[in-house]
Amino acid sequence: MTPPALTEQLAELAVGIGANVQPGQIVSISAEIDLQEVVREVAARAYRRGAKFVDVTYYDPGVKRARIQHASPDTLEFVPPWYGRRVFELGESHSARVVITAPPDPQAFDGLDPDRLGRDQLPALSEWMEVLSDRTVNWTIIPYPTVPWARLVHPELDEDDAFDRLCRDIVHVCRLDEPDPTSAWRQRSAELADVGNRLNALDLDAIHFEGPGTDLRIGLLPSSSWIGAVSWTVDGLEHLPNVPTEEVFTTPDPERADGRVRSTKPLVLVDGSLVRGLEVRFEGGRAVEIDAEQGAEVLRARVARDGGASRLGEVALVDRESRIGQLGTVFYETLLDENATSHVAFGSAYEEAVSEEDVPRVNKSGTHIDFMVGGDDVDVTGITRGGERVPLLRDGAWQV
Amino acid sequence: MTPPALTEQLAELAVGIGANVQPGQIVSISAEIDLQEVVREVAARAYRRGAKFVDVTYYDPGVKRARIQHASPDTLEFVPPWYGRRVFELGESHSARVVITAPPDPQAFDGLDPDRLGRDQLPALSEWMEVLSDRTVNWTIIPYPTVPWARLVHPELDEDDAFDRLCRDIVHVCRLDEPDPTSAWRQRSAELADVGNRLNALDLDAIHFEGPGTDLRIGLLPSSSWIGAVSWTVDGLEHLPNVPTEEVFTTPDPERADGRVRSTKPLVLVDGSLVRGLEVRFEGGRAVEIDAEQGAEVLRARVARDGGASRLGEVALVDRESRIGQLGTVFYETLLDENATSHVAFGSAYEEAVSEEDVPRVNKSGTHIDFMVGGDDVDVTGITRGGERVPLLRDGAWQV
Repeated sequence: MTPPALTEQLAELAVGIGANVQPGQIVSISAEIDLQEVVREVAARAYRRGAKFVDVTYYDPGVKRARIQHASPDTLEFVPPWYGRRVFELGESHSARVVITAPPDPQAFDGLDPDRLGRDQLPALSEWMEVLSDRTVNWTIIPYPTVPWARLVHPELDEDDAFDRLCRDIVHVCRLDEPDPTSAWRQRSAELADVGNRLNALDLDAIHFEGPGTDLRIGLLPSSSWIGAVSWTVDGLEHLPNVPTEEVFTTPDPERADGRVRSTKPLVLVDGSLVRGLEVRFEGGRAVEIDAEQGAEVLRARVARDGGASRLGEVALVDRESRIGQLGTVFYETLLDENATSHVAFGSAYEEAVSEEDVPRVNKSGTHIDFMVGGDDVDVTGITRGGERVPLLRDGAWQV
Repeated sequence: MTPPALTEQLAELAVGIGANVQPGQIVSISAEIDLQEVVREVAARAYRRGAKFVDVTYYDPGVKRARIQHASPDTLEFVPPWYGRRVFELGESHSARVVITAPPDPQAFDGLDPDRLGRDQLPALSEWMEVLSDRTVNWTIIPYPTVPWARLVHPELDEDDAFDRLCRDIVHVCRLDEPDPTSAWRQRSAELADVGNRLNALDLDAIHFEGPGTDLRIGLLPSSSWIGAVSWTVDGLEHLPNVPTEEVFTTPDPERADGRVRSTKPLVLVDGSLVRGLEVRFEGGRAVEIDAEQGAEVLRARVARDGGASRLGEVALVDRESRIGQLGTVFYETLLDENATSHVAFGSAYEEAVSEEDVPRVNKSGTHIDFMVGGDDVDVTGITRGGERVPLLRDGAWQV
């Protein structure tokens, strides 16, 4: 069992500096069904901050498994209309949102047909992409340690030790080992904002990743600007969409990505299926080849779901000061792994990173799938509008 | 852990003779969060019958506890509008519905303010009353054994024995010990329909309950007719709203209930709070005094929620052939206890038990709270429109 003090600290991060829950707000909490302990703690703290109502959505991988196994194939993409409407109404009522995440038990979907699995997108709802882009909701995603997750991350340890180790990892990467975690996050956010400002000053037109198996150029939009850590809602509420966060990111030009890229960490899709050894070739912004040692088929099905799913919606840079990167641990959980190293994402883009006139040009999709492409042996170079090449990351260290 | 065979058998009753799930239907499953095992089994069987989508709503008493403890008092009655709208849409799409029930752990709400507890009606949604009255949804409620429930019912046994005993009780009362439980339910339904027909032939104007602490007359509407076991949707789908079911019921005149009644079994409210030793005095159809050895305050708060909540919406007769009554066990779960013995209910009425012209006269409320008033020492007498007194139940046995 997770130490109660850790549950309380994570819940406080979630409603505090994370989502920044306000009095009178409705608070949506989404979590897998095994995370009841922390869901209840987040709910209690949200109510203590004056929340009007806490609307919990539990996701049960066992029910999804029943669907993939037994449902008629022509129904697998169906989602009742009230699922998406609820999301829009959470946006319209300017609610807060806390997502608590642990990778689903990889055994949850063992032996299922990857094509069927790829067609059921739940619990992801594309309506969230729209609502988050509208910036009406102050939101955060935080991790929570579980025993199946610990087994996945530390298979060399016995179960108790693995779980203790994962708890310590999470304490460290969430900066709960700092005397005042909230201040620590304010300071780290300021550093990331500062890196973003320096990158913005370079007036970059493209980013070039070069490393083993990787030679990829990603074009930026004229107004693409780099953002770190903090977001603001239309009501001016500051929140940290990811806790932990170590990245500066921007929204690329979905028409300009060319070359090959090899992912530097495994990734776990929202349904718990694992993609290892991913290699993607891009032409004119589109992924034209997707290969992997494991999980290529499920990923291909997800990337085929709409026109934007095969194009990039995010490019994010992470330096080696990242606490997650420093641990050297693969967490099989995008929230953590994407903050270990530089990454890009298929699918929907964050409109807040571009100006009004570029909004029509950003990538649109019902999905958003991050994958990790950075590392100490991957050079990241900026190409300015003037054509100059500016080293951004070498050996994982900022050059700007 | 519940024996897998019992989980499978109960799930099959739920989707089969219970809700009678049809190909292409959306199936709503509602259950407490601890009932994942059977929820998954019901989902799998619903999909195998061709369900289009299974929409599971898990209710977490721990989240409710957080609300009662910490939420601002002026928010406790708030329910987001999308909760009720989902219910109406399930009705509009002619969905199926399975409710899986076990009494909430009585400790879940220990020490909470009963007034605050009474103001939060969730997980009950008054919209279900409307939708069930519309008869657009084929539905059932079935029980599922849990360890906290077993401890409540069989406190004299150790935990394993108590749980085994509860499982055996449920097997018996759900007729899973019959060679073909579905046929057994068809036969029992036919018997109950037959009793209903004989009661209808009497052309009753009122029902008189007499026993220790009880002397209550309940008036019927001109068209009140007695219904047993089976309901039909507007689409002609046959379903068993309760499994098990042992009752014949009708919809009374909400303006005519006079006298005192003492409940013959404890009842557990939807939030898990217990009401023991309930005594109610009615005048002109309205409960004007509510007393109890335990839980009177929470019940009073629920009965004060709207005008119809203090009037009767149901009167149901159960004879001593009931398998539940024969066990002599108090289950602290209305689904079972109400089928042990005759009962009445505060709140909303089933419109299907009256003709069109009496529909405006039936009781309307956002709640429905059954309580048990029958027993071997409670005489039930019918009073015909001609004023004749006809014995209906004596020593628990049908006289008609």
